[in-house]
Amino acid sequence: MPASSEKITIPARKGKAAHVKKGQVIKVINTHGEQVVDTWAFNAHDTGEFMSMEHSRAMMSKIIPAVGDSLVTNHRRAILTVVEDTTPGIHDTLLAACDRYRYELLGVKGHHDSCTDNLAAAMKELGANLPGTPGPLNLFMNIPVLADNRVEFRPPVSRPNQYIALRAEMDLIIAFSACPQDKVPINGPACTPTDAHFSIE
Amino acid sequence: MPASSEKITIPARKGKAAHVKKGQVIKVINTHGEQVVDTWAFNAHDTGEFMSMEHSRAMMSKIIPAVGDSLVTNHRRAILTVVEDTTPGIHDTLLAACDRYRYELLGVKGHHDSCTDNLAAAMKELGANLPGTPGPLNLFMNIPVLADNRVEFRPPVSRPNQYIALRAEMDLIIAFSACPQDKVPINGPACTPTDAHFSIE
Repeated sequence: MPASSEKITIPARKGKAAHVKKGQVIKVINTHGEQVVDTWAFNAHDTGEFMSMEHSRAMMSKIIPAVGDSLVTNHRRAILTVVEDTTPGIHDTLLAACDRYRYELLGVKGHHDSCTDNLAAAMKELGANLPGTPGPLNLFMNIPVLADNRVEFRPPVSRPNQYIALRAEMDLIIAFSACPQDKVPINGPACTPTDAHFSIE
Repeated sequence: MPASSEKITIPARKGKAAHVKKGQVIKVINTHGEQVVDTWAFNAHDTGEFMSMEHSRAMMSKIIPAVGDSLVTNHRRAILTVVEDTTPGIHDTLLAACDRYRYELLGVKGHHDSCTDNLAAAMKELGANLPGTPGPLNLFMNIPVLADNRVEFRPPVSRPNQYIALRAEMDLIIAFSACPQDKVPINGPACTPTDAHFSIE
């Protein structure tokens, strides 16, 4: 029997990237239940081809992927397919990763971790080239679009240890950031970012 | 009395870019009424800073800008503000520009113009550096988000000579593409791309 796959930590407020082979399944676990995990994927052989939210929305005719849906790259090729989702299925494709500009506007003085910087650090750790900051797949993030075209920032509806499983449709680099947002309650009303985990099976 | 501003043509199926000074107002005219105009804006002094739909949605808390709203850059600085809109206010920030991959998937053999290629050609004509293909502001494009999170591709609801006016909040390069999509009725049920016009006042 194969051993269960190793769980890799995405540290609270930080990022982590890993190589994934075509056909492997990445399980992203919301360990404490209310942590948003910004997610990116890049073609392992050419990181200029990357998962694109604006191309994915067009190809899926949806703003949130569900089981059976494929996210696509900026070349409109499938890169990740949702194969299981034990959460209520609420994720976000609309909003940019947080960045130092966001925290400056929120009144933060000095350094604040950000998903944008976390992506850069995680890719650098792998020695991978990063072509700008693509719009992320914000797993577990709860941004409803209301009938008047407004969006609202709400806490996640996932529960501890719920997960989403994504199959790699090409050799890829997956990158995550456990969102360090602690000024608005996007990571739960306690505004306390936590760690999260993933495994590659 | 100042003369009325020159109307510049965005040729059917093609692109056009221009320099705009801070404070000038760009009027984008849907000359024939049903033409989608993909729109990008870049900081004139550093095109690595550009209008970003994912940052704009986050900062506006909206998926469609209306009069008084500012689109922002990937540095979260205002770059364009909507100052007038004589259309019914239906535009799109969700979908990628069309590209050769899109037309290949639609069964087109050989060359087909695309908004992505039109952006590149328009920027090249100005001698400006293009940092990838940012998600566009798709003026006049009608992509409602339904209650079940699906999006629909519908014909524009604008009428001939209706326009939207955008004030430049920094020195910028504005780039347009009169979308060459003729396989799905996003440019009206006739699937016949037309020209459109803009002026800088």
